[in-house]
This record gives sequence, structure tokens and C-alpha cells, in this order.
Amino acid sequence: AAQFHAEFYDPNEWADIFAASGAKYIVLTSKHHEGFTLWPSKYSFNWNAMDVGPKRDLLGDLANAIRNRTDLVFGLYHSMYEWFHPLYLEDKKNGFQTQLFPNTKTLPELKEIVENYKPSVIWSDGDWEASDTYWNSTGFLAWLYNESPVKDTVVVNDRWGSGIPCHHGGFYTCTDHYNPGHLVEHKWENCFTIDKHSWGYIRTSGANDYLTIQELLNEIITTISTGGNVLINVGPTSYGKIAPIFEERLRQMGSWLKVNGEAIYSSIPWKYQNDTTNKDVWYTSSKDKQFVYACLLVWSKNTTEITLGAPVSSSSTSVTLLGSDVGPLNWRPASESGGIIIDVSNIKTYSLASDWAWVFKLENVSGSELLNQNQDDIIYDY
Amino acid sequence: AAQFHAEFYDPNEWADIFAASGAKYIVLTSKHHEGFTLWPSKYSFNWNAMDVGPKRDLLGDLANAIRNRTDLVFGLYHSMYEWFHPLYLEDKKNGFQTQLFPNTKTLPELKEIVENYKPSVIWSDGDWEASDTYWNSTGFLAWLYNESPVKDTVVVNDRWGSGIPCHHGGFYTCTDHYNPGHLVEHKWENCFTIDKHSWGYIRTSGANDYLTIQELLNEIITTISTGGNVLINVGPTSYGKIAPIFEERLRQMGSWLKVNGEAIYSSIPWKYQNDTTNKDVWYTSSKDKQFVYACLLVWSKNTTEITLGAPVSSSSTSVTLLGSDVGPLNWRPASESGGIIIDVSNIKTYSLASDWAWVFKLENVSGSELLNQNQDDIIYDY
Amino acid sequence: AAQFHAEFYDPNEWADIFAASGAKYIVLTSKHHEGFTLWPSKYSFNWNAMDVGPKRDLLGDLANAIRNRTDLVFGLYHSMYEWFHPLYLEDKKNGFQTQLFPNTKTLPELKEIVENYKPSVIWSDGDWEASDTYWNSTGFLAWLYNESPVKDTVVVNDRWGSGIPCHHGGFYTCTDHYNPGHLVEHKWENCFTIDKHSWGYIRTSGANDYLTIQELLNEIITTISTGGNVLINVGPTSYGKIAPIFEERLRQMGSWLKVNGEAIYSSIPWKYQNDTTNKDVWYTSSKDKQFVYACLLVWSKNTTEITLGAPVSSSSTSVTLLGSDVGPLNWRPASESGGIIIDVSNIKTYSLASDWAWVFKLENVSGSELLNQNQDDIIYDY
Amino acid sequence: AAQFHAEFYDPNEWADIFAASGAKYIVLTSKHHEGFTLWPSKYSFNWNAMDVGPKRDLLGDLANAIRNRTDLVFGLYHSMYEWFHPLYLEDKKNGFQTQLFPNTKTLPELKEIVENYKPSVIWSDGDWEASDTYWNSTGFLAWLYNESPVKDTVVVNDRWGSGIPCHHGGFYTCTDHYNPGHLVEHKWENCFTIDKHSWGYIRTSGANDYLTIQELLNEIITTISTGGNVLINVGPTSYGKIAPIFEERLRQMGSWLKVNGEAIYSSIPWKYQNDTTNKDVWYTSSKDKQFVYACLLVWSKNTTEITLGAPVSSSSTSVTLLGSDVGPLNWRPASESGGIIIDVSNIKTYSLASDWAWVFKLENVSGSELLNQNQDDIIYDY
Repeated sequence: AAQFHAEFYDPNEWADIFAASGAKYIVLTSKHHEGFTLWPSKYSFNWNAMDVGPKRDLLGDLANAIRNRTDLVFGLYHSMYEWFHPLYLEDKKNGFQTQLFPNTKTLPELKEIVENYKPSVIWSDGDWEASDTYWNSTGFLAWLYNESPVKDTVVVNDRWGSGIPCHHGGFYTCTDHYNPGHLVEHKWENCFTIDKHSWGYIRTSGANDYLTIQELLNEIITTISTGGNVLINVGPTSYGKIAPIFEERLRQMGSWLKVNGEAIYSSIPWKYQNDTTNKDVWYTSSKDKQFVYACLLVWSKNTTEITLGAPVSSSSTSVTLLGSDVGPLNWRPASESGGIIIDVSNIKTYSLASDWAWVFKLENVSGSELLNQNQDDIIYDY
Repeated sequence: AAQFHAEFYDPNEWADIFAASGAKYIVLTSKHHEGFTLWPSKYSFNWNAMDVGPKRDLLGDLANAIRNRTDLVFGLYHSMYEWFHPLYLEDKKNGFQTQLFPNTKTLPELKEIVENYKPSVIWSDGDWEASDTYWNSTGFLAWLYNESPVKDTVVVNDRWGSGIPCHHGGFYTCTDHYNPGHLVEHKWENCFTIDKHSWGYIRTSGANDYLTIQELLNEIITTISTGGNVLINVGPTSYGKIAPIFEERLRQMGSWLKVNGEAIYSSIPWKYQNDTTNKDVWYTSSKDKQFVYACLLVWSKNTTEITLGAPVSSSSTSVTLLGSDVGPLNWRPASESGGIIIDVSNIKTYSLASDWAWVFKLENVSGSELLNQNQDDIIYDY
Repeated sequence: AAQFHAEFYDPNEWADIFAASGAKYIVLTSKHHEGFTLWPSKYSFNWNAMDVGPKRDLLGDLANAIRNRTDLVFGLYHSMYEWFHPLYLEDKKNGFQTQLFPNTKTLPELKEIVENYKPSVIWSDGDWEASDTYWNSTGFLAWLYNESPVKDTVVVNDRWGSGIPCHHGGFYTCTDHYNPGHLVEHKWENCFTIDKHSWGYIRTSGANDYLTIQELLNEIITTISTGGNVLINVGPTSYGKIAPIFEERLRQMGSWLKVNGEAIYSSIPWKYQNDTTNKDVWYTSSKDKQFVYACLLVWSKNTTEITLGAPVSSSSTSVTLLGSDVGPLNWRPASESGGIIIDVSNIKTYSLASDWAWVFKLENVSGSELLNQNQDDIIYDY
Repeated sequence: AAQFHAEFYDPNEWADIFAASGAKYIVLTSKHHEGFTLWPSKYSFNWNAMDVGPKRDLLGDLANAIRNRTDLVFGLYHSMYEWFHPLYLEDKKNGFQTQLFPNTKTLPELKEIVENYKPSVIWSDGDWEASDTYWNSTGFLAWLYNESPVKDTVVVNDRWGSGIPCHHGGFYTCTDHYNPGHLVEHKWENCFTIDKHSWGYIRTSGANDYLTIQELLNEIITTISTGGNVLINVGPTSYGKIAPIFEERLRQMGSWLKVNGEAIYSSIPWKYQNDTTNKDVWYTSSKDKQFVYACLLVWSKNTTEITLGAPVSSSSTSVTLLGSDVGPLNWRPASESGGIIIDVSNIKTYSLASDWAWVFKLENVSGSELLNQNQDDIIYDY
């Protein structure tokens, strides 16, 4: 953190890049496991971004830029424990029977960030070595929901003490890169990194170490389809910039979501998530259940027909391709028991408004017992 | 240069990236205008990469990697003058009537790099404030072609003294980013940068400051079509890496050249360079004049026909699209006086082996008085 | 403090220099007003000598060296307040009605140094902006004298809250450089610096900015004579050495005390402190009142007689000069009402064991109503 | 040299300290063996004090201060060779049959400092690995004495090539710390350091590593007595100050010379240099041979008589002690064959104007065959 100078940090630029990416939420890391606070905390003297390194309130400046320039919802990541803090180590040595660290550090600083920056999301982390009793998480959450300035709007995750994640909490994060591949009943989140190997910016990473735009859309589509939210991590450089390769991915993602966003934002899981006939298709549904979205991850070379196994058509079924201007596509039932074969021969080469993944919007296809769950979010983390 | 530490410099990785880009030549900057030599020069005590900063022979290490791992031809950029050298400034103050600087610095160090690293290209620069008499360029070139260890293979450019560039020299570089847009009789070169604004790595550059792959291919195609070579600049980061955004562009370029390279490497200019009918087409020819390559920079949305104005067809004319497996395309003459209209309706969406620019290969189209000039190179600079 | 690297810090060398100076006590600065702790405090994460800068326990290492190699008594200076600590500033903003800072910082860390390093002196400072109620000094001192591991031996000063110094406390320090020039009833201390202008090491100080050995002995003699202790400050260099000019002064002082120490150590104030007849003389007494010491600060040039105004002689009066081997000196009464004129014509040039100041030891001179006060100490600070 | 920042360098302060020391000459190191030039040399790009580190012309600034504020004669130390210079190493590898280094570096820069700073002394060094033929010393000295701007005033030493020192040259320096202990016919110089172990400033040196003022005066007196000059080295700190311990020594030396200077400045060697009877006495003579100075290094404790073995008295012999106001001292012949016993019982304790060493001025003592040699100098080096 002392090597993190952020001399070229421009929170307006960050806000604009995030807005251009199509994200709805942003989650800023306020403090990671090494304990360096990106805001001038009263409880972290000489180990915060105002006293050491950048010499500015990185958190407050970005909060203002996000709120002034974008519609993004602003959230904060916060690590409960700190690897090297002597009071935490003292408590740990005492089998967590003392609470020196939560009482003089974690809880006061959590209140401090809530009161100063009024986040709409608190993404807690670093809880796992000790129980929620040690952390007094219940006390904090009671204050958060009953008395804090964000009591009516705040959303939290599930990392508030050992044994809690994936079992209790606002939304489940379970493990990093959690992407179960099937529908999960409780709200959950896939938090992953564009650099495949790291949550921070790694100067030695080469082009092959980053997700391609296809891989990135694959993560988003499979997560949304199975009822999750997406939290995408972007590690800034030591001089405070979002590296061009990240910016390129985020802008590519934004251009894709501009065309295909209705299948992602405000969608809910459909009856089926993916397809036994075509393994490259994942489904979502509009909230009012009028439309089913079939998201295709691979467009087979030279194909003229695309087969979907799960939807059952009727005489009033209609199929269009988002980003195409050729209008309704021809289709026929795949078999008596269901499935649809879509004719894409009318789609001319280089005629579509976006590439990398494709969304067929189906109307009047059967599908019952839809889950009534709101899955509308791409959340950002850095 | 003292801030340039290159701690993560891996010459093998560089060599592999350059090889993957499809380049044929690489030109390393041995010394730029600030006088810092990337090799341990006897004539630059305490101002070279071995004494200060990286503490290694950056030039020798890359030369070895290039020669051991690739088929790339190895060249060196060298700045004659130095912005701050007191002996150069003394000579300048004396109206270049004294030669303290060339005699004790420039000429000994040019011989040193030729003898130590045996470059096949010498890309001279920084010559323009003084005449070739001051620099004693003639003396050096006489030695280079008659006595030096590279006398039989070396190629040089035209920057050897004021008044020389664009008039004399091995190949003409004229001005930076020189791209005349029409055929030039003498061998020439377009040297340009992927970062639109700088020859060095700029940490504040955002994604929009870099050439897109489409813009990059546009530069290459128009240059080759008008008889030039291409020299693409890539500025490394201060820690010695090629930034991922550069690597991505170079690998994209390499994937395109793998499909379309025959229109670029070993091609010669055709009778016509571009087209009054279709402004997005530029032509090259195979050396044996059997084929004409029509390079299309923009594929109009929803089009089924592509018109070329310059070629004149005959009954035996054949047209194929590189990267397509549909075989010969249908075509018809555009008018009695010439031109061809190519039918692309058979090209299915997502069926081609590359994107971004397209090469139609024409056989048996007329075209006379071909220039007999070899224009086969993409040269690298960093 | 981050610029304080102490790379050449050798606590054994320090201990030896202090021992050679003739000091009886040493007081190490454990933490000054900027809050940087010289020991690895649990309550000063990332702002202590183990985490930042020297990367070692400067305090513990010196404590060990002092105890292993010398007879010096080990004490600690400690600043209550910290100029920049946000919790202190918060309390101050609240009119010292909150006690965030003493409860989570000052008091825990005071206990920490007492328990870890067992100092025999606590020299408190930085108390003056707030009352002893705010600091909870009474609570701490109760613990110190009743429960702490040093309860039977520890001595403290008077800086424990605004209004306390010079009124309550173990020994009075009143203001820095306090030297009243007359007898003070309560034990007090003159803490002064060899660099006349600073408590720290100032790299721009020239030879004239340091006390000469004459000036230094002047401070010691006048302080001891009037019932005070001496605390001499020596600021180390940023690389952890005691500068040679300081070392020279300390060794000169040690050589003087070796000859004249009996007038200083274990002495008590005499009935008179100085002299209306000879302004360059200050008196002390042996504890058993057998001897009076007349300390002469200036030896007038070419003099053969030295006059003392205060002592009253009798027929059995005897006078010797410490460091001289000529034995009892001739003397005669100055007048009927008292005073002595000492004949120094027998003292040959360059025959004495020390220079700079001179002690005449008088036996059987009258002087009544002696104060029964122990003033035996030179204490060190750095 | 890059670590030498000299941020507190005040050439006026230096000049004043040197003037206060009683020196007549000062010799500044313009370039030492590592090749870093303290002036902005055209022949040392990026390895001089203007480009790197202090960012100022240290040499020019001190030259101006010396000339504006003092009567000191200004000289320059210059190292011929450079430990790490690649051209020197190349010449060395070639058995000094090539002269790349002297021709492009040493000789141009020697002329540069002479022309720019007009030194009255050139103290050459670092010559010893190669012959004066290699260095072309003869050519340089011919230019220096016949054409240079200092041709009428300049003085040089003897280090101009292997085999030259102690055999040819303006004054002989022979080896460092050369102090032969007997008369040398040719002008010679004792160059020594106040830090006993180093020519540079050593931060780990303690008080015992520096010459005491007694030891320093011992060096001066023995050197002058045997016909040499004195060059005293003072290494500045990395922040450009003369350390207080050096300043103290220089000011002590100045105070001594103020009283006793006539025995040093403008003196010549006497017939005898020291004394078989009293080993602590060294002699000099006034130029007009009217006076002999007997310099006493140790004043025996409790002595009333001082014996000199070498002078032969006559009835008109007169003896005084410099710094004493008692006038002529009593004396008697030591024996019939010569020698004088001086009665110092009249010298009262603390009556002399200086300490540490004592000069008896003898008139009308015999002594013939005086050497006619001018030994008047204390030269400074730093």
C-alpha cells in the first residue's frame, strides 16, 4: 500500500469507464486484508491513503464521482480481519476469547465508513477465522438495519463469521469464483476477476492471462441464468489507472450489454437453465414471463440452423435475434415433445449489432413454475 | 532512463510475441535522443543500461533471444544526436564547424554496435540539425558496406544528415507516420505507433488512445499497397514488459496475417493502389503478377455484393476470398470499361477465418506496367 | 520516523558512551510527540520501529545493552499526546469530554512499556493540553505504584496533566531548560540539550551551535548546587549513531566527573548556593555535612589567590583542590565576618588532572541548617 | 556520488571555516577515482555534480566563495585515472599502448578545469598504473606553464605518472600520510586525514577515530620542522556539511595558529629538526635566521624547567614563550657543550593564550648552515 501512489488516479475517468461497461453496481475495496484503509480512518493512523502513499481520500473521491456522473449503485468491500494487526493476532492467540480488535478497530471503522460514505452494499470479507460472536456481527447488523443512515436501502452479503457464508446473509458469495452451474434458490453472487489469476493488478500478466471477451460473457450469462449476480474484479495499477486491457474488456462488455441487456438486467431464471440438446445455450426469462431468452455462447461455423432443446413452441411462437434487423426468424419444432430449430440463413455476414454471444428472444413458448426471483445485477469490484 | 528498471524484462517473451505478430523484421532502439544506451557502451560511461537502471545488456539479450527463437531479422534504431550531450551542444554552438561529438561519441559507438551485435538493419535518426558532412555519414557507410562484419547483408534508412531523408538512403522514412497515400517509386517505410500519441509507453493512455485492430490493419494495407514497408512502434513499460493491450494488438495482427499474409508479404504494388469506385479497397499484386489482391477495409452492413472499380475481368477471371472455404465466388463485370461486382451472399455469418479486413484474390484480371518492386516487410520497433 | 533508519545503530556502543560520560541514569525516548514508537507496540500498528524504518526493537535492544554492560539506571521518556493522532484530535474537538485516545492508546501503551521493559524512571511529557482527569493519570499511577512490576523502584516526574508540572509529581521538571538559579525545595530537574537549539539531531548545526564543555559543566554545577537533577539530551543521527561531537562532549564530561564527581554525585545543597563575593563559585555539600565543595567556573588569568565569600573558617579549616597533588593549600580569612582567600600560587601550570572547572574541598567551615536533600544524579536522555 | 546530495552545502560557510582554521591554501577535490566530476564537465555527461545528485557546480561555487571571502590560495585535486571508466580499462587491457582515455577524457578535462577555475595548485593523483608517456603529462605541463591562464602562478605536485612521485614534480607527495621524520631537501608535503582511517566522511566513525587536537598539531609541527607542507583532508558529509567534529578541530587549530603561527608560516627548517635530549621538541627557524622556534609537544606534569639539547646559548640569548605575557624567561646553559634549561616556574597556571603545544622563541642562539627553504604552508584538502 505504501508502494501504491495512485498519482494518475482520476475518479471521474473510473466512473465513466464503469458506466460504459453496462454495470449497475460498483463495489469499492475500502480496506483489504493488509489493513490499509483507502479512506482517512481515525482508527488506522498512518496506515491509510491520506497519510501514506496517495495522500488523498481515494474512497470519498470515487464515491462522489460515481454519484455525480453515473446511475451506478455504490457499495463497499471491507475486510474484517487484518493479516498483520497486532491486536487481531493477540485476540487470535487468546483463542478469540478477547475482543480487542473488533472493539477498537473493526466495529468503529465499519460505522465510520457507513456514516461517512453511505454505501448501498456492504460486501464483508475476511471473517472466516473467527465466529460471528467474536466479530459481534449481529450487533453491527442490528445497528445497520435499524439506526444507520442507510438502514432502508443497504444490502449485505454473507461473510460475517465462520460458518455463516452460503448459509445466512443478504446474498450468498460462498467461495470466490463461485459459479455452481445450476439454479440456486437464495440470491447469490459470482465474484470473479478479469485477470484469471489475481484480484490485484499483476504487472507480469500477459494477454493470455486475461479473460477474453467471450470468456467474460460466458461467466456473466451462466451466472445470471442460474440465479446469481455478477461481481467483476478489476485491479488498478500502482499509479491509479485502470489498465487499457481492462478498459477494453469493460467497454466491449458495455457494447454487448447495450444490445443484449434485456436478457440480463431485470431478467429472472427460467424453468430451465441450460439445454441437453445444445450445450452452448443458457436461458433467462423476462420478469413478466412473457419472453424467454436463449443465450448462445458459440455460433457454429457455417451453420444455417440453431437448435434449442428446452422450449416448447406453439402456433403463436415468435423468435427474433437481438441486434439483428431482419425481424422474426423462421423456425420449426424440433420434435413432437418440444425443442425449436431456428433458421438463421437470413442473417447476413457482418449484419449484427454485436458479436461474441447471441440472444434469441422467444415469445409464446411454454415454461411453467417460474421462479420469482430478481436477478438483475452486474456488480463491480476493484 | 534511470527510472527504467526493466525488472520483469524477459527477452524470450518479447521474441515470442513479436514472432506471433507475423512481423518479419524487428528494430530495437539501441539509443534514443536522451543518449541512454541499452547496451554497455564504452562511450557512454554511467549512462547505459548496464551501469544504471536495469543493470543488464538489454540489447544483447534481446538480440540473442530473437536469433535463438525466431526467424525475425534483427535491426537497430540509433539516434545520431543527443539532446543534452555537452559535446554535441558545444559543436552546435560552434555552428557544427567542430566535430567533437561525432568523433568521440557517435561514430565510435555506431562501430561498437555493428561489431558487437551485427544488425541487419540500421535505422538511423536524430540527424537533422547537422549535415552529413558534420556526422561523417559517408565515412561510416563506406566502412559499413566495405569492411564491417555485416557488409553483405545490412540495410539502412535515409536519416544520415539534414537534407538526406526522402532523398538518399537505403529506404526512405521521410517523416514519422509518413504514409503518402499513393505509390512512391523508391523503397520507403511508414513508421507509426500503436499508442496514437507517443513512441514511449504512456501510463495515462486509455483504451481509446490505442489504434484498434481495424485502424492498425488499415495502416498496414495502405502502406504496403503504395510500395512502403511498415515499422510499428511498441513502447515497453518501465518494468520491461510489453503491455497486454499491445500484446493483444500484435497477436490479433498475427492471426490476421496468418490468413491474409500472402497479400502483404512478398507482394508488390499493383498498377493501381486504390479505387475510385470503392474507397475502402486497396490493391497489391503477387510478385509473379499472377494474382491481384483487393483488400477491403470496410464490409458494409447487410451487403450481398462488393464492387471493385480498378480490375478488368476476362472470361477466365477467378475470385476467391482468403479465409473462406466456399471456394470461387460468383462475379460479373461492373461495366464494359471494367470493374467487377463480387457476389458475397454465399458467405455465411461467422464462417470466415479472420475478421477486421478482407482480401479478395483475383486471377486473370488485367493490369499492365507493374512496378518491379519488392515490398514484403513488416518491421518492428520498440 | 520513516526517514530514521538507524542502520548503524549499535546499542552496546551507546551504552559504553553513556557509561563513559559519568551519568548515573539514562532516559530513552520511547515515543515522542509524532507518535512513532521505538518499540513494537501492539497499539501503534505500522507506526513503530519494528514495522517501519529501523525494523528492530530499538528500545528493547538498548535496555538490554544498558543492563548488561553498565550500572546505569534505565528510564523511559513517553509523550502522552500525539500531534497527529486522529483519535486525540477527535477528543480535543470534543473539549476532552471523550477519552477515545487515552483509553485505546495512551494507557494501554504505557502499561505495555512498563510490563515489557520495566523502567526505573518514567519521564512523562506531552500532557499539557488536557487535565489529568482526561488522561486518567491517577488511575495509571495507582496501578504503577501498587501493582506494576516496578512498583517498588519506579520514579516519575510531574508532567501528568495541565496544572500538574511544578506542583505535583515525583520530581519537578517545570519547563524545558528549567534552571532557576536558586535552591528549590522539592526535587527538580534541569533537562537541557547539548545542541543549544534542538532536542533532535540537526544536520545543519555547526560547531558553535553546541555547548562547549565549559558551558556544559556550568549547567551541571549550577543545577546540582540549587538542588536539581540534570537530564542531558543527545539526539542521535538518522543512521543511528551518536555524532562524534556529542561523544566528545560526553567523554570530556566523564573525564571531569572522574576527578570531581564527589562534588556532584551524592552531594546535597549547602546552606548557600552561590556567592556574593565571587560570582563564578557554586557550592554543594557532602551528605554527612563534613565537606563543603566550592565549584569554580572561571579561573582568572594570572591569579594567585581565589576568594570565596560564603564559607566561614576556623582554625581547623582545611582546603584542597580536587585533581591536584600538592596537598592542603594555604589560606587566610577574608575578613572578620567570614570568607576565605585561597593561595593557588603552588599550583603549577599543567599540573592538574582536569580542566574547565575546579572544585575546592573545604573541611571544618561553618554552615548550618543544611537541607537534607539527596541530589546525586545526572540523567541522560536521547 | 549519486548518493551525495549536498543539500545543505553552503560554500560561504566552508570558506569561513577554512579561513578560521589558519590555513593558507585550500585544495578542492575536483574529481576522485570514481570519476564523478564536481563541476559540470563537458567530458563527463551524466556523471557530474550538475547532472546527478547535487545539481550544482560545487567546485565553481566554492572557488567563488574562497576568492570573495578569504585570502586562501585556491587549488584543485584531480585524479588522472578512473576506476571504472571503460576507455581507461580498454587502454589498460591494451597494455597502455592505446591512449583512448587520456586523449578524450583526462587531458580535455584538465584543460577545462584550468581554463574555467584558474587554480593556483594542481594536486594530481591516480597516475600510478601508467607512465607519464601514456598520460602525456609533459604535454599538459608544457601547456600549463607556457600558455595556460595560470602559467605564472601555478604550483603542481609530483604524481604525473608511475616512477615520477618522490622523484620529479613541483612538490613531492610521495605516499599518503608521508611524514619522513627528518629533513627532506626537495619541497614535500604531508597529506593526512583528520579521520585517521579515511579520506571520506565515515558515518560510523566514533570520537576516537579522529585525531585529537594534540595529535593534529603534532603532525603539523613535525612536518614543518622537517621541511614539508601540510595538506589536511576533511571529508564532507553526504548532505554537504563539514561535520562539527571537523569544524571543532579546524577552529582549535586556527586558535593555536593565531598565537603560534610565526613558528609555522614563513618559517624555514633550522639546522636541527629535533632533539636528542628532549624528544618532545621540534625546531623551526625564521626566514631571516634571527629566531629559532622550539616547539614543545608535551608539557611534563609539575615541571619547572624545560631542557633543550640542540641550541647553543650566548650571553645575549633571550627566551620567550609565545602566548605568555610574563616576558623573557630565565634560563641557564645545560652544559658547556650546549643546550639550554629554561625556567618556567613563573608561568602561572591558566595564564597562557593557547594550550596543546608550546613554542619557545629563542634569539641569539647559535646554529649555522641553515637551509634556505620556504616552508610556509598549511594546505587544505577535502
